[in-house]
Order: sequence, then structure tokens, then C-alpha cells
Amino acid sequence: MSRIYLDWAASAPPFKDIMDQAATIAGQYYGNPSSLHAEGRSAEGILSESRRRFAVAVGVPQSALFFTSGGTEANNMVLSSLLNRSKPGELVVSAIEHSSVYEPAVHLEAHGVPVRWVPAGSDGKVSPARIAQVLSKDTSMVAVMHVNNETGAIQPIAEIAHILRENVRGSGRRIHLHCDGVQALGKIPVDYGASGVDSAAFSAHKIGGPRGVGALYLRSPLPMLFRGGGQEDSVRPGTENVPGIWAMAEAAERAVQDYEARTAHVLALRTKLVSGVSAISGARLIPAEAAGEQGFSPYILSVAFPPLPGEVLVRIMNDSGFAISTGSACASKGHKERRILMNMGMSDETARSALRISIGVGTTEEEIDRFVFALSQEVLTWNMPARA
Amino acid sequence: MSRIYLDWAASAPPFKDIMDQAATIAGQYYGNPSSLHAEGRSAEGILSESRRRFAVAVGVPQSALFFTSGGTEANNMVLSSLLNRSKPGELVVSAIEHSSVYEPAVHLEAHGVPVRWVPAGSDGKVSPARIAQVLSKDTSMVAVMHVNNETGAIQPIAEIAHILRENVRGSGRRIHLHCDGVQALGKIPVDYGASGVDSAAFSAHKIGGPRGVGALYLRSPLPMLFRGGGQEDSVRPGTENVPGIWAMAEAAERAVQDYEARTAHVLALRTKLVSGVSAISGARLIPAEAAGEQGFSPYILSVAFPPLPGEVLVRIMNDSGFAISTGSACASKGHKERRILMNMGMSDETARSALRISIGVGTTEEEIDRFVFALSQEVLTWNMPARA
Repeated sequence: MSRIYLDWAASAPPFKDIMDQAATIAGQYYGNPSSLHAEGRSAEGILSESRRRFAVAVGVPQSALFFTSGGTEANNMVLSSLLNRSKPGELVVSAIEHSSVYEPAVHLEAHGVPVRWVPAGSDGKVSPARIAQVLSKDTSMVAVMHVNNETGAIQPIAEIAHILRENVRGSGRRIHLHCDGVQALGKIPVDYGASGVDSAAFSAHKIGGPRGVGALYLRSPLPMLFRGGGQEDSVRPGTENVPGIWAMAEAAERAVQDYEARTAHVLALRTKLVSGVSAISGARLIPAEAAGEQGFSPYILSVAFPPLPGEVLVRIMNDSGFAISTGSACASKGHKERRILMNMGMSDETARSALRISIGVGTTEEEIDRFVFALSQEVLTWNMPARA
Repeated sequence: MSRIYLDWAASAPPFKDIMDQAATIAGQYYGNPSSLHAEGRSAEGILSESRRRFAVAVGVPQSALFFTSGGTEANNMVLSSLLNRSKPGELVVSAIEHSSVYEPAVHLEAHGVPVRWVPAGSDGKVSPARIAQVLSKDTSMVAVMHVNNETGAIQPIAEIAHILRENVRGSGRRIHLHCDGVQALGKIPVDYGASGVDSAAFSAHKIGGPRGVGALYLRSPLPMLFRGGGQEDSVRPGTENVPGIWAMAEAAERAVQDYEARTAHVLALRTKLVSGVSAISGARLIPAEAAGEQGFSPYILSVAFPPLPGEVLVRIMNDSGFAISTGSACASKGHKERRILMNMGMSDETARSALRISIGVGTTEEEIDRFVFALSQEVLTWNMPARA
């Protein structure tokens, strides 16, 4: 029987037609977009059109959109810009960020930039009131992700943006709000131009596009560390990956156009998944609020069976033909995988037991049924008295 | 009649079979290489095998090879590492570097790092003796490219490495030698492990691989600015572009395996090109030494017809169906395109007149014939008395 992939939040299987067409574009538009000849100009045409389409998909002006090698680079660009300021000020960052925001913040702290870490509540949300409490006259940047990559919890970005504006009203200052939008793009409604954020990071491979492609929305310029040939208005130098950028724009546009149908599909799967795993003895949804649909991405569900270690269950399920994870793939090798849940006030035991199940547009009802059945069998086996 | 592309140094048309197979790999190995499940492990398998193959192609240990989004990022990573040292020391950099080394060096200088700029001789070469003259006890890094992207001049990397070792002998210090290998990879013999360089940057799209993929050889770790999920031994975080990396390794391995046949092919074309353009009235090869084969990449030729402006000729030739450039595509939009030739001691008029003709494995003898004929016609027309 074929394997069942439920780790779409780590990387989504790409759309075959998009990959094939990107390969065709690579062959047809091989000119360097910076070149003055016809081959360069036609490549520049694909690039411009892709920028326009992606900008529409995320609700930002195309002039404020810069293509990167992925979400990690886009997040790093914004945080590292503080190192390029004569007065970096203070950074406020949620303690449940993806490692591509968390680790740069740790690095800034080591370089003497004061960092205020804001934990999430037990509901997985970073409260705007808690952000407000740590703001100071020196706060220069706040970083809060849109959708948490382990729990799917949607963070109150617009409320946080509002609080930041209120905080500096009349002072002439502006606090930069950065939002990691990697798990939000194509999964929940996004409109970053209207949301009040100053920057947002995106990745193509989470939405069925290619690896190695991402984007950064930047409302106004930041002092960037990397320099080169002036591409992307000097925000991000290097020959543009035209076929990859086209593919990301195509995947993003498709996600937005199919939003209602996709959401109905995955919400139905999620409901089935929630009721199925909740019925397994000892199951604890993380957070408990995830049982409802409101405020969570329909694509991600986290569940624990304490004291059963998550890593053990991931391996057992893998051997049974199911791909799930304990949390972020980006953290799984660094043994830091428990940080996010610990920073929601979760016990060490529960955090170590957590599984992340993440679905996608290609996931079927039958796959969920088979997964729930297999998981219930494995948990039951584990909990049989003979184990004790 | 179909167009003739002679701007391979800006970007090479990718191999169709490599692009197609990369798209297939994207669909088959969609797991995140950091994931613990079977899908992740099989993707990690492709990644490891690609690392081994690329490492062999450039002559370095696979443990010292890190995949990046391209040559620009790889160059920036090395230079920006100086910002991460408590004592950055002094940087020595050739004045004929590509903008992805030159601009970061300018940036370092603006941040207070002393930079010693070393011009090239009129032969387009950076002399080891000139490097030796500017070394001091504070020199921490030297950056000299392997093949210049405008003239094709091969720089004496091994001799420079030797001079650096001699300079610090017995002191316990080491001067880091960085080499931009982007125009060398697959074009001239490279063996970076043996050459004595401490780091080298590579790009896939110059050798028929995909855009947005590159690599950095790093003999020993440097303090990196960007942080994230610990991929690539934390030297370069972000989900690895497995299909793109596979494609780069395939293109590099192919270039090395076909080296003799390819070189014989392009050397014959270059001989024809040199004799053809030299016969046009007013032609000046840049540098004059490029008339010979020794010490120059067979893939790049620079020629000027002063006072005829290079940009005018590029546009005229484009309208006639030929894609050539005035120099680096990465500089063509920034209007800094004359820096490299000026730093070889060339007059402003000659530098402004320069054309870069760059060929590739797919270039044919007939294309060179047609190009030389068309160029001679256009130059002749321009020089007719009616113009004056």
C-alpha cells in the first residue's frame, strides 16, 4: 500500500504541471534579466509579470516585493538589518517563532541588541497586551509570525500592528513589525498591505511551488547586509531565479483563486482528524483550543499522547507508512524541537510527546481514515499493560 | 533567421535534460531533507549524493561544501563574516572583482574595515607581488577571483595563496584567501582543495544548471550572519533546494567529464573569433594579451572599437539578432560597468567601448562566422565618413 504523507507544513509535494512548466520557462527564457538584449528583456518580462501576480496574491504593492531564496533568507534579511543600524534599538520577538526568526534574534542578543522575548499563552497565541507590556521608547522592531508552524495558531497580527501604532503616536517614531508569513500564505486569507505589518516573509515550497524560492514584502527600505549587482532594487542581489519565481507566483495565485474550495476540503479533513485523534485514549490536542476551527490554520494539527515520546511515535508511524513529524523539520535535527511548546507553558512531558500532523490540498479523506486507524492501533499497543 | 546568443557568461542556456530531470526529482523527492521520515531521508539521500559529486568536481572535501542560492550569496557570506568578528582586521581585495565581492567590500569599508584595493595590470592580471606589497600584520582576508568575468583573465590564485602562507609563516596567523570561482567552474581546471584557497564561490546557472543555486567551499568554519534551522551545518540555513542542487551537481560533473572535448570545441571557436574580430578595422582586444590562448578562459573575449560606445554596439547587434554585452549583466543596470576595465589602467574611452563576447558548449562555428560578419558590417557602417 502506498505511503501517506501528512507533513505538508515541512514541505508540500510540488504541483507537477507547475514544475514542468518552470522547466520549460528555464529553457525558453534563459537570458539574464539584467541584460540589455532581447533574451534579457524577455526574461525580465516574466519576472515583472510574476512579481505583479505574487504581489496581488499577498496584497502588497509590487514595488515593495523582493524575491529571495526562501523564507529563511527573507526572515534573516529583516532581522539582520538591525546590525546595519548605528542604533539598533530593542527587538521584541515572540518566543514561538520559527528558527529562522528565533535564531537570528538569539544572534542579535549575543551582539548586544536587547531582545524582549514574549511567550505565548496556553492557547498558542501571543497576546497583543503582552507585546504592549514590553515596548519601550527604544523598541525598533517587533517580530511575530502569522501562523505558528507547530500548532497552526493564527497570531493577532493586525491587533499587534494597531498597538504598535498607538504606542508611538505623536512621537515621530515607527516600530517595524515583521511577520513570518510562511505558513499563512495560501492557507488563510492574507492581505499584508492592509494588515499594518512593515515586512513579511514567504516561501514557495510550502504551497506546492519549488524549493529555494521565497519573497520578502518590505513596506519601505531597510539597510541590507548583502550587496552585489543591484538586482531587486539592491535589496536582494544575485541573478533572479526567473523560472522559480514564475512557479512561486503561479502557486500563490492558484492558492488564492482556489481558496474557498481548498479551505472547504481541508476543513472537512481537519474535522475528521480532530474527532478521530481526540477519540484515541490519552490524546491531548495542543492547544486544547485547537478542537475548534476558529483561530487556527486548517492545515496543521498538533496532538500529544503523554508520556509516549513524539519521536518514538513518528518512527513507528513512519515504519507503518505514514509521514508525520514532531514539529518543525528545521528544528528536528537541532534537538531544539520543544522550544515552541515550552514557550506556550506546556509541561516538558507533554511537549516531548507532541506530534504535528499537517495536511494539504492533495490529502484525501481515505488517507485521514487510514491514518487515524493506524495511530489508534499504535497508541493502543504502546499502552498495553505488557509495555509497563 | 534565429537569434545567436553570445552572452553565456551572463547566464548559460540550461541543459534541457537536466531541467526535466530536476522537475521529476522535485516530484519524487519532495520530503524535507531535515525530516526523520522516509520521504525526508530519501531527499537527504539525493542531497548527500549531489554533495559528493559536486565536491569531486571542484576538488574539495564534501564536508567543506555548503549549498547556497548562488554565487552572489556565497561571496557575500564570506565577506560579511568579517562583520561578525570582534577584530575584523584588514581586507585586501582586487579591484576587478565581480560586484558580489566588490560591493560587499565597499560596504565593509563603510563600516570601518580597512580595505586595500589592488588594481590589475594592463594584462588583466592581479600580480602576486602587488598583493604582497599591501599585506600587513592586520590582514585577515584576501579576495581574488579565479577568472575575470569581463576579460576572461585567469588570476594567479595558487601563487597568491603561496605568498599569503609565506607572509604569515611562523606567526601563528592565517590570512583567509577567498576566490570567486563562478566563471572558472567547468571552464578551466579547478582543484580548490589543492590550490590553497580557504573558500570559493560557485554558481549553477553559468554552467547550464538552474538559477538560484550555488555553493560555497569553506575550508574551515567562518562566523556566519544568517541563522535558522541548522541546515548545511548551520553555515547556510533554509530548506535545501534538493532538485536544484542535484541539477548543479549533474551540470558540474558533466562539465568536468567533458572537459577536454568542450575545451577543444570552444578553443577552436575562440581562435576563429579572435582572428575575425581582430581583422575588423579599429579593433582592440582587451587586454591585448588575450590574442594568445594562455592565461585566459576560452569562453570569454573582450574587444573594443574606440570611440564607438559599447552600449550602442550592443543595441545595434541586438537589433541584428545577436546577444552580446558590454560587460557584467550584474553591473549593466547600475551604470558601474566600466569599473573593471578602468582598474586595469584602461582609458575611459576604450573602457566605454568594450564588448564582451562569451561563448558556450552549444555555440557553433557558423554562429561565430555570422557574428563576425555582422559585427564587421556594423562597425564599418558606423565608421563611414557620413557619420563624422
